Amino acid sequence: VPHTLIETDRLVKTFHAASLAASAETLGRFRQNTAVINKLSVGFDPVTEADQAAETAIISVIEEAFPDHGIVGEEHGSRAPDADWQWYIDPIDGTRAFISGLPVWGTLIGLYWKGKPFAGLMDQPFTGERFIAYTNGEGEAVSELTVRDAVRTDNNTRNTKNLSDALLMTTSPRIFDAPDGARYDAMETRVKLARYGCDCYAYGMVAAGQVDLVMESGLKVYDIAALIPIIENAGGVVTSWDGEDCSQGGTILAAANETLHAEALKVLATHG
Amino acid sequence: VPHTLIETDRLVKTFHAASLAASAETLGRFRQNTAVINKLSVGFDPVTEADQAAETAIISVIEEAFPDHGIVGEEHGSRAPDADWQWYIDPIDGTRAFISGLPVWGTLIGLYWKGKPFAGLMDQPFTGERFIAYTNGEGEAVSELTVRDAVRTDNNTRNTKNLSDALLMTTSPRIFDAPDGARYDAMETRVKLARYGCDCYAYGMVAAGQVDLVMESGLKVYDIAALIPIIENAGGVVTSWDGEDCSQGGTILAAANETLHAEALKVLATHG
Repeated sequence: VPHTLIETDRLVKTFHAASLAASAETLGRFRQNTAVINKLSVGFDPVTEADQAAETAIISVIEEAFPDHGIVGEEHGSRAPDADWQWYIDPIDGTRAFISGLPVWGTLIGLYWKGKPFAGLMDQPFTGERFIAYTNGEGEAVSELTVRDAVRTDNNTRNTKNLSDALLMTTSPRIFDAPDGARYDAMETRVKLARYGCDCYAYGMVAAGQVDLVMESGLKVYDIAALIPIIENAGGVVTSWDGEDCSQGGTILAAANETLHAEALKVLATHG
Repeated sequence: VPHTLIETDRLVKTFHAASLAASAETLGRFRQNTAVINKLSVGFDPVTEADQAAETAIISVIEEAFPDHGIVGEEHGSRAPDADWQWYIDPIDGTRAFISGLPVWGTLIGLYWKGKPFAGLMDQPFTGERFIAYTNGEGEAVSELTVRDAVRTDNNTRNTKNLSDALLMTTSPRIFDAPDGARYDAMETRVKLARYGCDCYAYGMVAAGQVDLVMESGLKVYDIAALIPIIENAGGVVTSWDGEDCSQGGTILAAANETLHAEALKVLATHG
């Protein structure tokens, strides 16, 4: 049982220390004219200096606290790939939000044990919001939000049962490929309201009980690793659009509760 | 000349006092389960208690400071409609963002003199960002951003000259009616990156030099009144999609500079 194999206190301290180390690299470059490097020659995939420097800083914090753990980063590749504990880092999830000056990007750090999500962090340093989730030494599932080191609350998802009452979020309805787009559109027509443009912040809003559903596709493992415990430990459900395990990425359906998740899966199955 | 007819100090103090009075009504209800009232029986147009209470609070502040001015509010209608000075209030622009827990809504207060934009405020109390614009007693156009009463900067728009380098924002590409949608889409295909979902916050990002273009349609006078001086005094241009005066609302094209604005108008004219 993984929660008996890791010190809760050390884990939580590592999340906070990694957040501070990352924000020291990101925040000073946010809303500046940073050097934007295009990773790919085709398309628009900005990676800032902040992204790379923050990942280096996070890796240092994790290595110091847990020297025998594995680490998979968006920028630096992986180390110790055979370790039971694996950390997944996305130093700036939502680079397009970052370069547009919008405070809906986040630093994501997830921790898996033997391939299963165990703990996660989403930090938004401009707004000062830090989501942390883990299972403590007593086996209690925790998902909490701290705002500017002051107000700390337990996350609780909403109890919306019907799609017709649900708030749905996605980064953009126009980035899906054709079959995924049709499935997304089928969902959008059934919900009360759809909102766009929030990257990882949308998942935080599910955990915090502000929205009901998030749909995205094409995610990598480090885009979703941190967010699964944050939502699940707050009462939500996260799977692929077909109801399968999504801990390695792909299509993501995050829902506030099991009932709503089942309703959403029915719509997706009909349009699959 | 209007700037000789109003005390700069009193005006700026009124903006700050109105921001505080409004945030006392909005912030405590943000991310709570507020009573949502649908203004219209058709469609989804949420107005929270916060919206109504904040407008009442703002009106009190303005009436105290400028008792002979006119005031037009989204919620409470107008008073002194024949006065030279008219205040336009939208207590929560972006109510959909507000009810989704997203910090991209804002309190908007604009001031017109004889029908022309003179001064404006956009306040986002959760992030602590306050945009203020006016012309001071010496005739200098000011557009400034204060973050959490600490960091204060002058706003300056970007110097992007080509649409192919431009970042475009709109609240949703799916809320335009058919002819407007085709014109918006024509623009989206020409820019480097489009981002969705930011309501009034998008205009703040133009003023702050973070994005280059905003396109919206169907705006009311109180949705745009505050934002025109904030962008113009930072170096930007705000008109309708046909290059006409937009100070009474309608379609809005906000651009970082005259060159880019002219390029954007060319695209819109071709698809008009």
